[in-house]
Amino acid sequence: MTPAGKIETVDDHGGSLGRARALFPQAPQPFVDLSTGINPHSYPLFDLPATAFTRLPEAARLEELKKAAAESYGAPAAANVAAAPGTQILLPRVMAQASPGRAKVLGPTYAEHFRGAALAGHSVEETSDFNDLFDSDIAVVVNPNNPDGRVTARGKLLDLAETLARRGGLLVVDEAFMDVGPKAQSLAGDVGRPGLVVLKSFGKFFGLAGVRLGFALAEQGVAARLEAELGPWAVSGPALETGIGALADDTWQEAMLDRLAGESERLDKLLESFGLTVIGGTSLYRFFETPVAQALFVALGRNGVLLRNFSWSRSALRCGLPADEVAWSRLQEALVAWKSRKSFKELAS
Amino acid sequence: MTPAGKIETVDDHGGSLGRARALFPQAPQPFVDLSTGINPHSYPLFDLPATAFTRLPEAARLEELKKAAAESYGAPAAANVAAAPGTQILLPRVMAQASPGRAKVLGPTYAEHFRGAALAGHSVEETSDFNDLFDSDIAVVVNPNNPDGRVTARGKLLDLAETLARRGGLLVVDEAFMDVGPKAQSLAGDVGRPGLVVLKSFGKFFGLAGVRLGFALAEQGVAARLEAELGPWAVSGPALETGIGALADDTWQEAMLDRLAGESERLDKLLESFGLTVIGGTSLYRFFETPVAQALFVALGRNGVLLRNFSWSRSALRCGLPADEVAWSRLQEALVAWKSRKSFKELAS
Repeated sequence: MTPAGKIETVDDHGGSLGRARALFPQAPQPFVDLSTGINPHSYPLFDLPATAFTRLPEAARLEELKKAAAESYGAPAAANVAAAPGTQILLPRVMAQASPGRAKVLGPTYAEHFRGAALAGHSVEETSDFNDLFDSDIAVVVNPNNPDGRVTARGKLLDLAETLARRGGLLVVDEAFMDVGPKAQSLAGDVGRPGLVVLKSFGKFFGLAGVRLGFALAEQGVAARLEAELGPWAVSGPALETGIGALADDTWQEAMLDRLAGESERLDKLLESFGLTVIGGTSLYRFFETPVAQALFVALGRNGVLLRNFSWSRSALRCGLPADEVAWSRLQEALVAWKSRKSFKELAS
Repeated sequence: MTPAGKIETVDDHGGSLGRARALFPQAPQPFVDLSTGINPHSYPLFDLPATAFTRLPEAARLEELKKAAAESYGAPAAANVAAAPGTQILLPRVMAQASPGRAKVLGPTYAEHFRGAALAGHSVEETSDFNDLFDSDIAVVVNPNNPDGRVTARGKLLDLAETLARRGGLLVVDEAFMDVGPKAQSLAGDVGRPGLVVLKSFGKFFGLAGVRLGFALAEQGVAARLEAELGPWAVSGPALETGIGALADDTWQEAMLDRLAGESERLDKLLESFGLTVIGGTSLYRFFETPVAQALFVALGRNGVLLRNFSWSRSALRCGLPADEVAWSRLQEALVAWKSRKSFKELAS
C-alpha cells in the first residue's frame, strides 16, 4: 500500500552535499562523496557551441540524439526512443501509460518508482518476490538492481511483460545501470512489443548527472505519446550536444568499462581488508551488509567520507567509486580510523 | 472544441532552422532568424563549474534559484515558485491542477496552451473575447500576448481569477514576455491567492532558450505539488547556475530593457519605411498585418531572413530583433529586394 507522504518527496537520496553537511557539520571538507552510483570519471566536457545555450534546441539535433541512443542501447529505431531531461521526470508519465490499477515494484530498490507510480494514480506495493509481479497491472523492475546489483534474466522479464500486456498492463524496466551490466539481459531490443517500457539514464555511466538526460524506450506509439506529453524542447541544448557526442563514442565507453571493472575490484579488496564483504552491486557501486553499518556510516561521515545508507535496512550500505588517489587515501584512512575505534562500544551501536 | 491532432504536436513554432532550410532550401545562409521572440543579446555565458555537469543538482542551489526568481519576479516567497526545465514541460501539469472541465484560451496566442490543456483532459476552446473566459473551468491568458503584445490589465485578471477560484477553477497567466512588459500588470505578487498560476520563462528575455528553465508561481501548496510531480533534479546544473547568476543581475537587466526598447523602435522605423505599420508586440518582437504577408514571408525567406507567419492568419507577421549590424543590413536588403519586386504579380499572391 502507499505509505502516507511517499507521494510528496523522497528525502534520503544519495548525492546531496547539503544533506551531508547537515549530518556531519564537523567533517573535514571537501567531502569524498561515495553516496551515489554516478561515475566519478565523467565523459570529458567539451566546448559547447554558444547556440546550445542561446537558441531553442533544434528538432533535427533531437533526432540525432535519439538515433545515437537507439544505436548505443540497441533499441529497434530512433522512433522507439523518447528523450527527456532525466528519467526522473519521465516516471509518472511512464506509469500513466497504464490505467490506474495495482502497481508492484520489485524491491528494495530506487525509491522514486514507488512515488512515480503513486503520482500516476496507482496503488503501489513493494514486493521482494519476482513471481508476485505477475499479479499486478504495472510492474517495475530495476535491472541491474540498485543498490544490490541483482540481475533479472531477460527471459523472465519477457514472460512477465507478455503476461501483463495480455491484460493491458505494463512492465517498466529501469536499466539505469545496464551500461555497466550484462548487456545480454537488456530488454532494449525488445521494446517493439506492447506493454514494455525500458528506462535509460545518461548521467550515471557518463558521469554527467547534472546535465539531466534520460530516455524511455518503448513501442513507437508510446514513445510518441511520451514526447507529446513532454512537449517540444524538453531536452536542453547542452544535454543534446553532450548526449550526441558521448553516446556515439564507443572507444571511450569500452575503455571506461574496463577502468570501472578494475576500480570496483580494487574497492572490493579494500573493503574486504577491513572485514567488509561485498555481496553485490555493479562496477559503479558496491553493496555490502554488516551489523555495524550505522556506526560505520557515521564514523566515515565524520571523516568526510560519505557512504549511502538506507531507511529500509540497518545493516545495508552502498559505496561508490573514489574519484582519484586522494579520495582513495581518504577512504582508506577513514576505514583505518573506524577500525581502530571499533572496539569502542559507543560506535558499534 | 479540441481539433483532432492538436494534442500530438504543434508544427509551426518559430525558431527552427531545420524547418527554415526545408522551406527555403536555396536561401543564402546563415539564416537571419527573426522568427522568435527570444532576445538575440543573450546574458553573457560564463564559465560554469564542471560540477554543474557532473554532479546531481543540489537542493540548496535549487532553493537559491527559487529565491532569486521570487525576488526578480516579485512573487511572495521562494515557496511560491516551482522551477522546471522550461515552462513548456509544466503546461499539462499546471492545467491538471483543475479537474477536467472546460478550458478557454484567450487567442490567438501561443499554441501550446491549447495542447497542454487538452493533454490534461480538458475540452478546449479558443476565444477572442475576454469576458467569455468567465464561463470556463480553466482560463488561459498570455500577458503580454504573443504575438500581438496585447496587455490585459491586472485588475481584470484578478476579477477573473476570483470568479474562477470561487467554483474551484483556475486562471493560468503566461507572463513569458512580462520581463519586457508593463510590470504593474504582472500577477506575480498575487499568486498567494487560490486558483491562480503565473508562468515565467527564463530563456526569452535572457536570450538563453537552449538552457531550458521556467517557473510556475502559485500558492505554496500548488507549487509544492508541481515540484513533487517533476521530481528531484528537474532543473539541470547549467540551468541552475545560469539562472541564479542572471536573475540576480539587476544591472544587466536594466541596461538590456533600454537596449531592447531602442532596438524595437529602430525596427519599427525600418519596417515603416517599407510601408509596414507595426500595430503591436513587445520590445522582443514586433507584430504587423499586411495583405501581402505571405509574399513578404516568402520573399524574405528566400533571402535567408526568417519572419514568423501564422496558421490562423494570412495577413499577420511577427518580426524579432536582428542580432547585430550584419543582420540589420540583411533585413534591410531583403526588404529592398522585396519592395523592388513587389509589383511582380506572382509575389503578391
